[in-house]
Amino acid sequence: MKATVTVMLKTGVLDPQGEAVKSALLGMGFDGVQGVRQGKTITLDLADGTTQDDVNAMCEKLLANTVIESYAVDMDT
Amino acid sequence: MKATVTVMLKTGVLDPQGEAVKSALLGMGFDGVQGVRQGKTITLDLADGTTQDDVNAMCEKLLANTVIESYAVDMDT
Repeated sequence: MKATVTVMLKTGVLDPQGEAVKSALLGMGFDGVQGVRQGKTITLDLADGTTQDDVNAMCEKLLANTVIESYAVDMDT
Repeated sequence: MKATVTVMLKTGVLDPQGEAVKSALLGMGFDGVQGVRQGKTITLDLADGTTQDDVNAMCEKLLANTVIESYAVDMDT
């Protein structure tokens, strides 16, 4: 089974990487860009029987810094 | 409107960051982890009228290195 974890900086936390991407896109003529935030996607190949609680524990302990980042877990099956 | 772009290394391209995460998770006792791949998520705030073709162009020109990375665009509204 697979799970997809998306980790993003929380709202209000400055995202210089996203700002840099926004500036670059505007500089290339993509005028419609109003905001950019950049985060991480982690896809996990998991043994059968691994639960969403296990994946949440991985996020809390390693994958996300929950002080400044939020995460979402999507169990693909 | 918003768009979410997910950029992952193509299958077959070595992903040392994912391997490092896998090793760390196994070392922490998460025995069910069989594979990890890490990529980028970019959320874009866009002016109304921006099309998926525009976002695809952003990916081709800046957001993804299409030699080694694949991307997926999800137009949220």
